[in-house]
Amino acid sequence: MKIKTPKIPALFIGRFQPFHLGHLDALNQVFAQEDYVIIGIGSTEDDYVPGNPFTAGERYQMIEAAIIGRKLGGKIITRESFDILPARNIHHYSLWVKHIESLFPPFGRVYTGSPIVSRLFEENGGHKVVPITKSRHISATEIRQKMQRGEKWESFVPPFVVELIKKWNAAQRIRDIAG
Amino acid sequence: MKIKTPKIPALFIGRFQPFHLGHLDALNQVFAQEDYVIIGIGSTEDDYVPGNPFTAGERYQMIEAAIIGRKLGGKIITRESFDILPARNIHHYSLWVKHIESLFPPFGRVYTGSPIVSRLFEENGGHKVVPITKSRHISATEIRQKMQRGEKWESFVPPFVVELIKKWNAAQRIRDIAG
Amino acid sequence: MKIKTPKIPALFIGRFQPFHLGHLDALNQVFAQEDYVIIGIGSTEDDYVPGNPFTAGERYQMIEAAIIGRKLGGKIITRESFDILPARNIHHYSLWVKHIESLFPPFGRVYTGSPIVSRLFEENGGHKVVPITKSRHISATEIRQKMQRGEKWESFVPPFVVELIKKWNAAQRIRDIAG
Amino acid sequence: MKIKTPKIPALFIGRFQPFHLGHLDALNQVFAQEDYVIIGIGSTEDDYVPGNPFTAGERYQMIEAAIIGRKLGGKIITRESFDILPARNIHHYSLWVKHIESLFPPFGRVYTGSPIVSRLFEENGGHKVVPITKSRHISATEIRQKMQRGEKWESFVPPFVVELIKKWNAAQRIRDIAG
Amino acid sequence: MKIKTPKIPALFIGRFQPFHLGHLDALNQVFAQEDYVIIGIGSTEDDYVPGNPFTAGERYQMIEAAIIGRKLGGKIITRESFDILPARNIHHYSLWVKHIESLFPPFGRVYTGSPIVSRLFEENGGHKVVPITKSRHISATEIRQKMQRGEKWESFVPPFVVELIKKWNAAQRIRDIAG
Amino acid sequence: MKIKTPKIPALFIGRFQPFHLGHLDALNQVFAQEDYVIIGIGSTEDDYVPGNPFTAGERYQMIEAAIIGRKLGGKIITRESFDILPARNIHHYSLWVKHIESLFPPFGRVYTGSPIVSRLFEENGGHKVVPITKSRHISATEIRQKMQRGEKWESFVPPFVVELIKKWNAAQRIRDIAG
Repeated sequence: MKIKTPKIPALFIGRFQPFHLGHLDALNQVFAQEDYVIIGIGSTEDDYVPGNPFTAGERYQMIEAAIIGRKLGGKIITRESFDILPARNIHHYSLWVKHIESLFPPFGRVYTGSPIVSRLFEENGGHKVVPITKSRHISATEIRQKMQRGEKWESFVPPFVVELIKKWNAAQRIRDIAG
Repeated sequence: MKIKTPKIPALFIGRFQPFHLGHLDALNQVFAQEDYVIIGIGSTEDDYVPGNPFTAGERYQMIEAAIIGRKLGGKIITRESFDILPARNIHHYSLWVKHIESLFPPFGRVYTGSPIVSRLFEENGGHKVVPITKSRHISATEIRQKMQRGEKWESFVPPFVVELIKKWNAAQRIRDIAG
Repeated sequence: MKIKTPKIPALFIGRFQPFHLGHLDALNQVFAQEDYVIIGIGSTEDDYVPGNPFTAGERYQMIEAAIIGRKLGGKIITRESFDILPARNIHHYSLWVKHIESLFPPFGRVYTGSPIVSRLFEENGGHKVVPITKSRHISATEIRQKMQRGEKWESFVPPFVVELIKKWNAAQRIRDIAG
Repeated sequence: MKIKTPKIPALFIGRFQPFHLGHLDALNQVFAQEDYVIIGIGSTEDDYVPGNPFTAGERYQMIEAAIIGRKLGGKIITRESFDILPARNIHHYSLWVKHIESLFPPFGRVYTGSPIVSRLFEENGGHKVVPITKSRHISATEIRQKMQRGEKWESFVPPFVVELIKKWNAAQRIRDIAG
Repeated sequence: MKIKTPKIPALFIGRFQPFHLGHLDALNQVFAQEDYVIIGIGSTEDDYVPGNPFTAGERYQMIEAAIIGRKLGGKIITRESFDILPARNIHHYSLWVKHIESLFPPFGRVYTGSPIVSRLFEENGGHKVVPITKSRHISATEIRQKMQRGEKWESFVPPFVVELIKKWNAAQRIRDIAG
Repeated sequence: MKIKTPKIPALFIGRFQPFHLGHLDALNQVFAQEDYVIIGIGSTEDDYVPGNPFTAGERYQMIEAAIIGRKLGGKIITRESFDILPARNIHHYSLWVKHIESLFPPFGRVYTGSPIVSRLFEENGGHKVVPITKSRHISATEIRQKMQRGEKWESFVPPFVVELIKKWNAAQRIRDIAG
């Protein structure tokens, strides 16, 4: 009996404050090239502050609700397609890739739209980084600002994520944090 | 369009230093009662020390290798059946359950063989705790001691975990830590 | 012999950088409804920085000097009326109420003028929160800015607190921090 | 109007796991020489572990219940006589006295039965340390061990503290932690 | 045999993000008055962020490259003239001087151009602080901004430091962090 | 003008609680093969506890006093021969080598008598590790135990270190910590 070589997952990492249509577009690109993806949630202990209003557990739920059963990269996404893994911010960035390597199972290609995340993975351990093409500009910062000002934000996040944010009354939470 | 109510997972949490047949027996009991289980890895930042020789990423691999495709609780375990989630030790235990609640998505029943974990989940948020019956005594501490002394340890861990531990040369690592 | 049921204190929590007349107005409202109040000092390890120039020990002295022997809520405040308790900032806010519950003795109603503190106490453990009516707007941020610019700030803080701040030469400290 | 010079408190500091009759004897000696005492609770974030089973909030309640209204050092203890202040362990002991000085209001003489606490206060800032004479040996470690083994422990702690420990079912908690 | 009384070093401390000609001017003043200087690198764990792009190890190399063999304060600088020592930021500034005293060997005069560093050393342990005269204004913040905007920055740092920054491709790193 | 390629230092790392003749023997072996050595002090924030009684600053002084001007590896040791650098313990050992690489300037061969330090440096970044031959067994643990029990310890540490330990009255400190 031989251990089944597990599929080596790709890594896509973000803070997802909140998970929005730009993230979904990115995952569409990732799943077009990969069968199995670790979606890493960063800064998991940062919550209830202006730049990070959602808990890690809430962000997990947003990602899961947005992608399970959805067609991304030409295939239907199931639990066999992805894994969501939380990682806290260690605030010592030259150690950050090693921190991720220590916490997560081995991963292959790293997908990111962030130049500094890209640089860190390339400089540390020689990870292969695949750039994400931003098809249209959607910014989590702007979405949070719209929530804070009581403006429309719903068209920038996937429908199931809209439902969750409303269930949590999180736009009001963001106004409370700001106030 | 309505958000699909996700299955509420149960929670089974441990340090898995290493994952052994006692853990497998416990998961057999859990899966007999649950369809979907979060397997929480605790103390993820403790590694390369006598009581915690394995990294979180290695422990993830041990659990995955031990249960995927295996029959537990009368059903074949697939990625649809479980989720492995890491959580660091915060060393302030009256906050620990809240820490887990913040990091993980919502969970239902908590399965544990540890009296203090049981107490913490019951005292904090009134979680329903289901005790694990230890069918036979297998101790991770004793397995590590056997590794350290160069004794036979292989019969206490699942075969695929034996392979991983040998691939990592981890019995020697444990002797190096001790020496 | 039976343990005397201690009076359950109310909780009023702030950073008090510095303690000013707005805080005194708030405590006037609290003591009108409560006989015994825990005054919690938050972010106790933040000091000598622009937003938090005073140490926890200095903030303790400011509060004590401002309220002992003073008439608040229609009664003379003595050591029987209040307790000042420090709590550090844990920078993981979904755990913050649990952190306070772990550090302080049991408390009843929570008085706050902050929407997010209010929300956190209501969401965690179902604390009863009583809103503070801000009779006039006094902002610690503005007081610190006045100190930094060498403007008049003395009319915004209680007289005994003015004395302490002058004794510590703290307006100069704030300019040094900024400079 | 002149600020009333507050009474300079003495400092008596311990972990109080639990508060026992030896602590009460010590406070009897302290109050014989002092009118106003800060009772510092150390290691406040350590709880639910073998050496530190009680939370800081519980330890606060034990101290308060044990001394309020009691005659110590020849006087009846009221809220005018003492202040209970929590301080976390910073695990960098050459900074520890400075940590206490930063958190607490100014204090005068330091009472302790611990040689290393005595040394730290004398070496850092030249605090005047007054040794405590241990009238009889009572050890918190032994009390916890008695609780763990199910032996009689009640005669070593003040009656009101016995009541609290029983109300919290804390002897069982200690057995759960150990088991 | 008697222990040779070591030369008591002076202390010059900064973050050196990056080391620039203003720092070199300051060291010129220091070495005019001192034979042996500890150059303390602060905030050593802050790197790869906008305000702190360089690692502690890189900052060590910049300082060493800039001063070894150079004439400063009228003498040729060798390894006999200085010592470079790293110190992390503890984010509790009233303990910061004690933190430095604990980490470094005993030092004498403290040279700084920062009013708050000056105040902290004078208030804690009565260190003798010697002010640095800023001969011309060079700001590390502005140098980083120039790098970020792709402007000329080379004339503000010593030639050997220019070489190192180019070798590390660090101007691009700063743009990646910003982007 | 070209930057002078600095000599690449070797690394020798330990806790030095206290620095003893075994460390001196080890440095004798290191300097026989190396011209320039970084002597790294680990666990710098651990002090005034049984296993780590000395501060980082005191350990720096012990090392300096023991080796400056002494003949080691056939050459007279001067400030040109070594550099002493402190590094705190991060308690996440799979990140530890990266932590050292981030804090220190680039180093070449790593000398150690510890199997786990050896393994960590080899597994992380492929450092070349040179084993130290322990010419005779001297243990810092045993030296501390002798100090604690009031036994003779002076013959196990270099003469100048004896002087420092006596100046600091550190044997008594160790007894105070234990008592």
